[in-house]
Amino acid sequence: MIEVKSFAALRRFSPDKLQKLNLFETDRFFCDVYCLEPGQEQKAHAHAGSDKLYAVLEGSVEVRVGGETRELRAGEVALCPAGSEHGVANRFSSRAALLVFMAPAPVRT
Amino acid sequence: MIEVKSFAALRRFSPDKLQKLNLFETDRFFCDVYCLEPGQEQKAHAHAGSDKLYAVLEGSVEVRVGGETRELRAGEVALCPAGSEHGVANRFSSRAALLVFMAPAPVRT
Repeated sequence: MIEVKSFAALRRFSPDKLQKLNLFETDRFFCDVYCLEPGQEQKAHAHAGSDKLYAVLEGSVEVRVGGETRELRAGEVALCPAGSEHGVANRFSSRAALLVFMAPAPVRT
Repeated sequence: MIEVKSFAALRRFSPDKLQKLNLFETDRFFCDVYCLEPGQEQKAHAHAGSDKLYAVLEGSVEVRVGGETRELRAGEVALCPAGSEHGVANRFSSRAALLVFMAPAPVRT
């Protein structure tokens, strides 16, 4: 059977915090959907050996990479190179949903 | 400067063949946008050591993985594990656009 997930169906928001919903995780990468209500954020952090992409599906976020920030809108993708501090924050008035890819997948503890 | 690309802006169709537009390529992955007019396809092929995702942004495609086929609609993502034969075909009447993610990036010759 072909493994298929729906990011439309998995999309879920919570008033408590950013929702991270995993679509796929293999030995080589993971792909998550992040759902952010206005005001929610993923704090800046870094991965020594993995590159990450944030692709905005809906709404806008402020993306931070390596000490810089900028607005990232629906239809835009930002690269977070390995070792760079990065995060996203919804500083806007609408919900935001992102597709997030990272490779290699980190060891989750 | 944060590296940002717009898959909305890069989206481009050609009557000649499927368009593959690269968003990002690093040592660890690549991310492309595929744009398929009705009738266009990516022939089935395999990568020994890389996993791939097809994420449909617009329209529908028929996805093939490991000898099986199924329809993949906007908002759905299919996993093509390393070694599996895979491809996509637009068998429908509307244009289709996909975000394609593969890790590790293959050596392009």
